[in-house]
Amino acid sequence: MGARERVRAVVEHRRTQQFFFYVIVVVTAALALRKPAADSDFLLVLIRIGIGIFVVEILLRFWAYGWRYFRDPWAGLDIVAVAAAFVPGGLALLALRFLRIFRVLRLVSMFPSLRRIVAGLLAAIPYLIGIGFAIPLIIFVAGVIATNLFGGIAPQYFDDLGTSLMTLFQAMTGEGWPDVAKAVMDRAPVAWIFFVIYIVVFTLGALNILIAVMVNAMEQVAFHEAEERTDLFEERLVAEIRALREEVAALRDERGS
Amino acid sequence: MGARERVRAVVEHRRTQQFFFYVIVVVTAALALRKPAADSDFLLVLIRIGIGIFVVEILLRFWAYGWRYFRDPWAGLDIVAVAAAFVPGGLALLALRFLRIFRVLRLVSMFPSLRRIVAGLLAAIPYLIGIGFAIPLIIFVAGVIATNLFGGIAPQYFDDLGTSLMTLFQAMTGEGWPDVAKAVMDRAPVAWIFFVIYIVVFTLGALNILIAVMVNAMEQVAFHEAEERTDLFEERLVAEIRALREEVAALRDERGS
Amino acid sequence: MGARERVRAVVEHRRTQQFFFYVIVVVTAALALRKPAADSDFLLVLIRIGIGIFVVEILLRFWAYGWRYFRDPWAGLDIVAVAAAFVPGGLALLALRFLRIFRVLRLVSMFPSLRRIVAGLLAAIPYLIGIGFAIPLIIFVAGVIATNLFGGIAPQYFDDLGTSLMTLFQAMTGEGWPDVAKAVMDRAPVAWIFFVIYIVVFTLGALNILIAVMVNAMEQVAFHEAEERTDLFEERLVAEIRALREEVAALRDERGS
Amino acid sequence: MGARERVRAVVEHRRTQQFFFYVIVVVTAALALRKPAADSDFLLVLIRIGIGIFVVEILLRFWAYGWRYFRDPWAGLDIVAVAAAFVPGGLALLALRFLRIFRVLRLVSMFPSLRRIVAGLLAAIPYLIGIGFAIPLIIFVAGVIATNLFGGIAPQYFDDLGTSLMTLFQAMTGEGWPDVAKAVMDRAPVAWIFFVIYIVVFTLGALNILIAVMVNAMEQVAFHEAEERTDLFEERLVAEIRALREEVAALRDERGS
Repeated sequence: MGARERVRAVVEHRRTQQFFFYVIVVVTAALALRKPAADSDFLLVLIRIGIGIFVVEILLRFWAYGWRYFRDPWAGLDIVAVAAAFVPGGLALLALRFLRIFRVLRLVSMFPSLRRIVAGLLAAIPYLIGIGFAIPLIIFVAGVIATNLFGGIAPQYFDDLGTSLMTLFQAMTGEGWPDVAKAVMDRAPVAWIFFVIYIVVFTLGALNILIAVMVNAMEQVAFHEAEERTDLFEERLVAEIRALREEVAALRDERGS
Repeated sequence: MGARERVRAVVEHRRTQQFFFYVIVVVTAALALRKPAADSDFLLVLIRIGIGIFVVEILLRFWAYGWRYFRDPWAGLDIVAVAAAFVPGGLALLALRFLRIFRVLRLVSMFPSLRRIVAGLLAAIPYLIGIGFAIPLIIFVAGVIATNLFGGIAPQYFDDLGTSLMTLFQAMTGEGWPDVAKAVMDRAPVAWIFFVIYIVVFTLGALNILIAVMVNAMEQVAFHEAEERTDLFEERLVAEIRALREEVAALRDERGS
Repeated sequence: MGARERVRAVVEHRRTQQFFFYVIVVVTAALALRKPAADSDFLLVLIRIGIGIFVVEILLRFWAYGWRYFRDPWAGLDIVAVAAAFVPGGLALLALRFLRIFRVLRLVSMFPSLRRIVAGLLAAIPYLIGIGFAIPLIIFVAGVIATNLFGGIAPQYFDDLGTSLMTLFQAMTGEGWPDVAKAVMDRAPVAWIFFVIYIVVFTLGALNILIAVMVNAMEQVAFHEAEERTDLFEERLVAEIRALREEVAALRDERGS
Repeated sequence: MGARERVRAVVEHRRTQQFFFYVIVVVTAALALRKPAADSDFLLVLIRIGIGIFVVEILLRFWAYGWRYFRDPWAGLDIVAVAAAFVPGGLALLALRFLRIFRVLRLVSMFPSLRRIVAGLLAAIPYLIGIGFAIPLIIFVAGVIATNLFGGIAPQYFDDLGTSLMTLFQAMTGEGWPDVAKAVMDRAPVAWIFFVIYIVVFTLGALNILIAVMVNAMEQVAFHEAEERTDLFEERLVAEIRALREEVAALRDERGS
């Protein structure tokens, strides 16, 4: 227990944290300069030393905090990035550790505009989950339909579900969809219906418009809730003043009697 | 009548609904795995059994609810999807039934953020109808003009109204419009006016900007209505307090007399 | 004067208006069906008859209303469209008259959601003018710079100001800009600075983000104005109640004396 | 000192300012008409005279205002543009001086809608700084990862960090990314994960949606602050009225005793 606390003190020391961050910067720089086609031994050695230090860092933190260490979302990023470095071809993911720079930027987030952006981002997460749930489902259904309808006509685009999903995903970015549409429509002219609906829903900002109008509608709802609160306040205030008036009226009646 | 109610009880039973949903999942999976180019007998048999169950399901529901069954928008989706399976080449539309998963997600919509998104979507429908009415009309007029102006110059893009509309729709997604513009402008250089106006209106986010500013303007209007309500409240409150003051003043006068 | 009023009554009569609108529909349909490459005499005759009726309509309206006729924005559209039909190659612009269908839709605009969209659109016009003023100016400056910098390197894209503006306009829609950048960067690698800045400003939704954030900021301003009004109200209400308290306190003092 | 003030009076004189602006217009026009491929001596002489006048203008302003001159952001633009003209190949940047037309437009900004846009723009700057900080960082990390993962597979797109960043920047505009994805996925099929994540984050309006939802969330926060203020006001008002009631009750008790 005493040992654990001493480890914690060392790990949390400003100098230690700076040292670990400098290692991240050096490893990222080495990865950035590396040309996999013509690899440099020097950079690779540098990266390997960095990985060693990263492993030590993770072990120290685990020693210092025990299982609580895993509650920190940054810990997850660190472990994934370092573990990937031991998988063949996964070295590149070490660069993800550089995103820790945003944590360093927490200092910057003392400025109100940056704090607000982060607060907005966090508040947006539940909505994004809903959207990120519905859209892949709709693309999946469109992919199943397209595979069955166009798989025989344009196998280069719709041979199986995987190919169809990639084609539809590309069409969703608006890239090269006319070629796809042409290949299909040469043999099935009515296919324009499928493509027009798909493109209108996903590409033409129809989604954007929807979001914009939705955001507005949600504000309206929030606005109504606020209005109801104001109404309650009015009721309370006016009731208070009426009671006061009755009291003064009673005072006057007593005086008159 | 007694029979109808028993059918209804069976149809609405949680187990029955789960069974029907599992059939949808199996049929969708079969459609997703199927490669039309090299069809599998096993999957096709699975899909045909599924269609049989779907037909029984629809008949049972119709028996249980009579004409009221058609008031449910999900019933429309089911009937269209199943009917399409009997049309040659329409088998793929069966996958639409999988969208029923969103109804299952109604359980999920007990979480407030998802409920708000759906509420926003429904509130947005009247606006979307207005926009979805105006934009096709403007594209239609642009298509008529383009067919008449450029039909003789670039028949591959503007030979008849259908071709023109498809070309303009593609240009609207910003895809490949410079090729179209080049083909026309080679013989009619002034045509840049048409393309610049069309692209500015439809592609360059001019629409988005419009929507954004419009949303804002609509909020302004809602805001003014709220302000007027607040003004009314002020008037009422202040009048109340003035009346009270006059009463107290009268009390004092009486005392002085 | 009496004649003028009778003409007005005829022109404004519901039947007359319906007749004129049907002529527009027929002429637009004729234009839509016409294939300029293989022209049909029948459709051309139909269109010419339509033009004759349009001319009569404009003359009648001018007779009925005099110069006031030109105050109606729809009159401007009508005159431009009909006048264009007499210019060689301008026949196609007759289709613009079909936009009058939006005026017929004014009936529809009795529904509140559509009325709000139109109100939002009109309220948005001053902002759009500002934006529609600034963006072409920035593109013009970018065009002058690009012509002078890249005119000798990639004459196919930047030979003179007109060509440069068209190239930059295409790049603004995000279409084919990598080809342009590659052609220039082959001989002037630093040119990436120009392209990255231009694309960030115009294509990457930077503009959209700006607009969104701006809209928000404008709301903030409106919000502050509302807050100031509320502050004023508070001041007034509290002052009122303080005066009342002093009055009651005075009453009590008098009683005590 | 007296000389300085006289210079200032000359520089600030409306006629002088008009003259300097006309020189800018003439130089910009000369730059716009110039075709670098076939240069015209006349236009070049005109531009050189203009540069001479610009230098005199900057010296005069510096004489008139001393170091305070550099506090004006427009001065920075002027000096950069004129200095660039002396660097080989930098003549084109002179056109930047034409942006001074926006300062002339300050007159126009007396109209409220334009003033509001500028106010919105300025209020948006802190948010844009935050966004303009985070996005390049994320692209940098993606570039390092892509170079290490795909550098050996598709050297034409990911050979070194610079090439990777340009490729990812192009993909960010949605332009040509399917070609890049295909080149990589031919040898590393799992690469679709990288491309789908990257495209979803940057191209598919996910960013736009995020911004929109964030803007909304930020409004919510502002709204809550307003609500808290209103709550405070309620507390204060109700406390005030309660105190009054107690006073009147006391008055009545005293009378009764």
